[in-house]
Amino acid sequence: MGAQQRGPAGGADSPALEWSVEQWFNHTGDLQLSDLRGRVVALECFQMLCPGCVSHGLPQAQRIRAEFPASEVAVLGMHTVFEHHEAMRPVALEAFLHEYRVGFPVGVDRPTADRLPETMARFELRGTPSLLLFDRGGKLREHHFGVVSDMRIGAEISALLTE
Amino acid sequence: MGAQQRGPAGGADSPALEWSVEQWFNHTGDLQLSDLRGRVVALECFQMLCPGCVSHGLPQAQRIRAEFPASEVAVLGMHTVFEHHEAMRPVALEAFLHEYRVGFPVGVDRPTADRLPETMARFELRGTPSLLLFDRGGKLREHHFGVVSDMRIGAEISALLTE
Amino acid sequence: MGAQQRGPAGGADSPALEWSVEQWFNHTGDLQLSDLRGRVVALECFQMLCPGCVSHGLPQAQRIRAEFPASEVAVLGMHTVFEHHEAMRPVALEAFLHEYRVGFPVGVDRPTADRLPETMARFELRGTPSLLLFDRGGKLREHHFGVVSDMRIGAEISALLTE
Amino acid sequence: MGAQQRGPAGGADSPALEWSVEQWFNHTGDLQLSDLRGRVVALECFQMLCPGCVSHGLPQAQRIRAEFPASEVAVLGMHTVFEHHEAMRPVALEAFLHEYRVGFPVGVDRPTADRLPETMARFELRGTPSLLLFDRGGKLREHHFGVVSDMRIGAEISALLTE
Repeated sequence: MGAQQRGPAGGADSPALEWSVEQWFNHTGDLQLSDLRGRVVALECFQMLCPGCVSHGLPQAQRIRAEFPASEVAVLGMHTVFEHHEAMRPVALEAFLHEYRVGFPVGVDRPTADRLPETMARFELRGTPSLLLFDRGGKLREHHFGVVSDMRIGAEISALLTE
Repeated sequence: MGAQQRGPAGGADSPALEWSVEQWFNHTGDLQLSDLRGRVVALECFQMLCPGCVSHGLPQAQRIRAEFPASEVAVLGMHTVFEHHEAMRPVALEAFLHEYRVGFPVGVDRPTADRLPETMARFELRGTPSLLLFDRGGKLREHHFGVVSDMRIGAEISALLTE
Repeated sequence: MGAQQRGPAGGADSPALEWSVEQWFNHTGDLQLSDLRGRVVALECFQMLCPGCVSHGLPQAQRIRAEFPASEVAVLGMHTVFEHHEAMRPVALEAFLHEYRVGFPVGVDRPTADRLPETMARFELRGTPSLLLFDRGGKLREHHFGVVSDMRIGAEISALLTE
Repeated sequence: MGAQQRGPAGGADSPALEWSVEQWFNHTGDLQLSDLRGRVVALECFQMLCPGCVSHGLPQAQRIRAEFPASEVAVLGMHTVFEHHEAMRPVALEAFLHEYRVGFPVGVDRPTADRLPETMARFELRGTPSLLLFDRGGKLREHHFGVVSDMRIGAEISALLTE
């Protein structure tokens, strides 16, 4: 499932990529993908001023979190700002997360000299929202850009859980 | 998942139950659960005049059908009429299925001398909509009454597929 | 508003048409349009097995009823069966109204030798759902076929109320 | 309608209040309520990080704009920031309006030494979203805080139009 939207980063033999985060909200200290080894990881990549992220991506991430036990599935957000940088600084993100009751850890994707932040470039994201699913070993297994149904996401997470 | 809504019929050691159908729509000839061995089976039990079936149960069954390949997951309906019998005869069901574009096989649960039809009694349904999931071996594994999320259903079907 | 969907029956100079009802539900005795003189009348014409009526037309009629005082706006339904006659007999309609909690008076449009029932033909309805709005004098003023927004309906009723 | 949510500012005898705007988007030059004399005015007061404004208030304002001719009903927004000031500066609002395709004029409510901006205080808003309706003479006639139905808003605007 999702193969047509999987970039080269998702190949079965690719090394486990790590994200690059400048700052976390809803989490103290650092948090690497490798720290979550043993759990399936759902990473919701979003921008706070992206309508599809607000109406679809983030609510879906919250439903993933409600559906699966935290000991089995870790849900995280990644604020991958590639436009309107002035409008979406961390101080604005913090207010957004408060107002939208986003309770899971959200990382600020590390800015670069380029328009694209570092994690976004590394995982070859095509835009926001993008939902990445990693297996228990930390490998990227599913990479969705745009709207994808809850039923498919539930099925994919479940398949990763039973591996 | 769903354990609190699973009746005694769902026990792991229970014999595989069969439904009892008076007549099929969208299918020619007979159709037993045992004919579907090798596939996961999603059975949507409904009444055509049940609002929750029309707004939630049947659309969800159609989404299951759209999401999973027919060779892996069989989606069927069962018209389990336990009230307003006069209003929900097969001739009315046929019009309903046409108007609501229900394209999967739908069985008419066999009436009995009692208020409850035979399949409904046999599977100890608590009402409609009820969604039953059977594994590839024909055993009832999940039994949901009322509204259940697409994410959970996707996860449950996926888990049964990977067994 | 709605002029492009208004049939000849809606002309300002046309005589006040009356509906023709075989039987009422949620009302005892007869009920003519002329009995409602002094009130704006919203008549929701529907079929119980018409998906657009169930998902849009009837809920909208219920919202009209909730929004405006009954002393000012009368909301009624008309079951205008023009297909699947066997499936939508009054006994089925009664069960439907009970299950969908339709509490306003609903008339059964009088069958004819033709496929179209009498009120439907008289008001030149194009199908279901159709929403007719009558002014306080009983004249047909708005005639909508299909989906129309709540905002427009609210505006039209309000305009008729202030005449 | 809406009397229970109308502050003292809405009294029939109150002088016509004016808003106080620091800067307009989607409009060149100044824009006073008095400039709109002859038209009904719908003023959507919102904050860009207020979930109810994003999911309900602003889409409703866009539906008002789509439903009524611009020559009869003027739709405007007012960004009344009373919290998270750092996160909702004009540069962020501009990006928000672009992303959410808000095409009507939006004023930035003038900040004060207090937490509440000037228009918000003057009209005694209770929070966001708040929808204010002014008659053709510029008097505040309806003042809604929170969610209000499209049908009611349509009815209220229509009543003001027919005065």
